[in-house]
Amino acid sequence: MALIVQKYGGTSVADAGRIRNVARRIVDAHERGNGVVAVVSAMGKRTDELLALANDVSAHSHPRELDMLLTAGERVTMALVAMAIEDLGVPATSFTGSQAGILTTGKHGQAEIREIRAHRVREGLDDGKVVIVAGFQGVDPESKDVTTLGRGGSDATAVALAASLGADVCEIFTDVDGVYTADPRVVPNASKLEDVTFEEMLELASAGAGVLMPRSVEFGRRFNIPIHVRSSFHDGEGTWVKEETMEQAIVRGIAHRSDEAKVTVYQVPDTPGVAAALFEGLADSGVNVDMIVQNVSHDGTTDISFTVPLVSVDIAEEQSTKVAVAVGAGGVSIDEGIARVSVVGIGMKTEAGIAARMFRLLSDRGINIQMISTSPVRISCVISGDEAIEAVRVLHTGLGLNNAEST
Amino acid sequence: MALIVQKYGGTSVADAGRIRNVARRIVDAHERGNGVVAVVSAMGKRTDELLALANDVSAHSHPRELDMLLTAGERVTMALVAMAIEDLGVPATSFTGSQAGILTTGKHGQAEIREIRAHRVREGLDDGKVVIVAGFQGVDPESKDVTTLGRGGSDATAVALAASLGADVCEIFTDVDGVYTADPRVVPNASKLEDVTFEEMLELASAGAGVLMPRSVEFGRRFNIPIHVRSSFHDGEGTWVKEETMEQAIVRGIAHRSDEAKVTVYQVPDTPGVAAALFEGLADSGVNVDMIVQNVSHDGTTDISFTVPLVSVDIAEEQSTKVAVAVGAGGVSIDEGIARVSVVGIGMKTEAGIAARMFRLLSDRGINIQMISTSPVRISCVISGDEAIEAVRVLHTGLGLNNAEST
Repeated sequence: MALIVQKYGGTSVADAGRIRNVARRIVDAHERGNGVVAVVSAMGKRTDELLALANDVSAHSHPRELDMLLTAGERVTMALVAMAIEDLGVPATSFTGSQAGILTTGKHGQAEIREIRAHRVREGLDDGKVVIVAGFQGVDPESKDVTTLGRGGSDATAVALAASLGADVCEIFTDVDGVYTADPRVVPNASKLEDVTFEEMLELASAGAGVLMPRSVEFGRRFNIPIHVRSSFHDGEGTWVKEETMEQAIVRGIAHRSDEAKVTVYQVPDTPGVAAALFEGLADSGVNVDMIVQNVSHDGTTDISFTVPLVSVDIAEEQSTKVAVAVGAGGVSIDEGIARVSVVGIGMKTEAGIAARMFRLLSDRGINIQMISTSPVRISCVISGDEAIEAVRVLHTGLGLNNAEST
Repeated sequence: MALIVQKYGGTSVADAGRIRNVARRIVDAHERGNGVVAVVSAMGKRTDELLALANDVSAHSHPRELDMLLTAGERVTMALVAMAIEDLGVPATSFTGSQAGILTTGKHGQAEIREIRAHRVREGLDDGKVVIVAGFQGVDPESKDVTTLGRGGSDATAVALAASLGADVCEIFTDVDGVYTADPRVVPNASKLEDVTFEEMLELASAGAGVLMPRSVEFGRRFNIPIHVRSSFHDGEGTWVKEETMEQAIVRGIAHRSDEAKVTVYQVPDTPGVAAALFEGLADSGVNVDMIVQNVSHDGTTDISFTVPLVSVDIAEEQSTKVAVAVGAGGVSIDEGIARVSVVGIGMKTEAGIAARMFRLLSDRGINIQMISTSPVRISCVISGDEAIEAVRVLHTGLGLNNAEST
């Protein structure tokens, strides 16, 4: 008998009919002789509705109370799913994040899981029950206040719970069939990957592949819990995210994102401490800086560029300008019309020349590269936003991903 | 500085605007120098919506999961109210029933409050905060499962919390102005009472005055917490429910209810143990029997009549018929077309003749009395349901309650 942790997102539990479908899938897994823990999100757009309600009541920020409010969402789903499972003749019991022992930091809205004390979940499993757990939520053991985990929080709950319970697999049910070589809405002949490594998935997720959030992949990697990303609408195999894959593909997939802006601080005096002052200030303001590029200096000054989420662009500009003035830099410019295109593949660790091929493919189409950054398994280029779709298609074809040639 | 526990029902918090109004009222009480704990219900019809959702998902009964589901309702309200209060510059914190230490029995849907361990509420008050508590919910300390208190549960939470905290008053905010000499929809010149005793209010509540549930009045009486029933829409004084009132009115008010059926078991052998068998059976079936009348026997048999809620009439008939057959009674009849009209007043303890006046007033109008039962401060008559409104009006006028002559 295997122990399976499943996770069903908001779309999968959006109404009574879908909840009964989810119950059917859970019961199927239980009847195949597995222990099953199912982590559920709030129904459909319920979290957004609760946020809208909070905005109607108050224009200000109330982190503790907002978490109290939002956690009502998963509470409704988990009770309904448990009822639907019992109707199929299988005993079920639901637990909030707090009851399931999801202990977090106290940072409301962005809490991190610290520890899981899942003895009530284990007792439920030992009693032969299916256990339903509210995703996205936990409790700060010091204040005893309820917390939420932020975006992708339900995935994180599922993978962390799987790690804590020593589960055999964590199944993430979603509204797509798995992880693709590129976004199928952009590249119609993109193909579904059978498997990717944790390292690749981390890079793909950070680079814009929305199907999994980096934090849950990181949990899976750290505790070596295979993650199976699959459709909640049919039984077919999805994509397995795991330690090693059968084939070390050179290029696994292309990811892109258009939700960032580029900030450049010009003519920064090339003296120690300037970059520290800039990025400390941004971090203190809560701005999530991603790609950072600094070139060699000329005439004692250099340019520093970085990307920030579009939602943080105003505060990033304000903060950067403050530092620029303080250190005597030339100025700050903002470009909101950018996109980032990334090529990811674990084979790039050993195979040279992929970067050169990528740059050539883009330049042959007249696509100008504004910034470059690399990791051992990824190459990212910042380009003009209106060239993003063309760039993804060119790279998908040019790097041999059409018809899944590389998997 | 006084300590005030307030309770706001679903209508008072039905939307964002009303929630801000409630916050304003709470802050007013706080700014007058009082410690304030506010108990809140689910917004508007949210509890009914959640029940409908449960019915959409499952046709069966899932008591534990239903309580988990329903408690999401107050959770939303309490967080929103706390936000709105903080927006007015007053620190606020919200607690679920469990967090507020409302420990109950394990009977889901109808849990009874056993004990209150309100140390988190007290700490909040000591820190100068307004404390918001979810009504209607608690936790069973043995199973650690969340429970709900059933109908009128939020009032019970408020009064029990007031008792536990040693509050000076429990204010029940509602959509009516207070307790009236009769239902103002039936008797247009019914007048609002300034005060009633706990004993009178208990009788009025049991006899159909819907403004307070008997269980919360009983809490107030037992711990001597004055209850102020008042409108959430304006600042005027409502009705005080307390130990002693200024004037010992002979008749305080008329109550009526039409949500009961009359069950009669005919020709019951007048031997010991028959009534016990009947009512034990009904209690085991969960039927809430109210008024019971048994006359002296003739020829060794007697008739036993009692009222049950209309919703329980089928099970009551089945159970009564079973016992009737077992003991050799003549048969069972059911009348669903009845009403109960009650006259309540603490002065009836010492003043004779009210019963006679009540019966005369009814008979002069040709209204037939089917059952009579009395307590020291109440006389109730079961009559035909279609004569109920006329009976209430006749009694209100005939017993001198028009224009609040008796208060």
